[in-house]
Amino acid sequence: MKLTHIEHLGIAVKSLEQAIPFYENVLGLKCYAIEEVAEQKVKTAFFKVGQTKIELLESTDPEGPVGKFIEKKGEGIHHLAFAAEGLQASLDYLAGQGVQLIDKAPRKGAEGLHIAFLHPKATFGVLTELCEDPNK
Amino acid sequence: MKLTHIEHLGIAVKSLEQAIPFYENVLGLKCYAIEEVAEQKVKTAFFKVGQTKIELLESTDPEGPVGKFIEKKGEGIHHLAFAAEGLQASLDYLAGQGVQLIDKAPRKGAEGLHIAFLHPKATFGVLTELCEDPNK
Repeated sequence: MKLTHIEHLGIAVKSLEQAIPFYENVLGLKCYAIEEVAEQKVKTAFFKVGQTKIELLESTDPEGPVGKFIEKKGEGIHHLAFAAEGLQASLDYLAGQGVQLIDKAPRKGAEGLHIAFLHPKATFGVLTELCEDPNK
Repeated sequence: MKLTHIEHLGIAVKSLEQAIPFYENVLGLKCYAIEEVAEQKVKTAFFKVGQTKIELLESTDPEGPVGKFIEKKGEGIHHLAFAAEGLQASLDYLAGQGVQLIDKAPRKGAEGLHIAFLHPKATFGVLTELCEDPNK
């Protein structure tokens, strides 16, 4: 399995309206896109720093995964996403290693990426995502 | 303020001995250094993926910051560290913007970096560190 870089970090926030000005005006990172991912019940705001995107996640439903995360743990880093070369082969490799997967096959994520989540029980508490850009 | 990339991600784990083989043998990242940072009451293991280091943190004292974090929140991502050009000037800028800082001046971190932490109350729940390599 070949992980090339951290594709993005997902950060759960209560309010994009409050958090975006902090990332823009204080940290100096530019919000280049806002996208709703209905399937995940989130609205996301994207920033780029070096090779990595920061994806702020505001829940659109208290019963969604980010809503539940904030209720349980508060605002903070929600998941870590690596760029993987050969996503399906990587998932097959992980399954063969006995790693518990949330997604055994890639599905479509934000920005048209193919994505899959590993189970945090298998990754020492870090909700870990693998991503591949199908256009690269 | 100019943040160039994510310098590292700090991940709290209960046991380096258990977590390192997962990062090496399953995720395919190589542990290139292990270092004890007595001041922070942690033992750290370093991996590199693209521009970013992953820093696994095992507490050496239940009363240390990582020991308390794990007790409260469980294992998981502990902090996010950006590489900043001009660390002291960045801290002065942030203080001027009313951002609550843990460190108003840089101190020495792992790998000889100069580091400073922002307060998670000021950063929407994300313990945020700024780093500068004094040799660059």
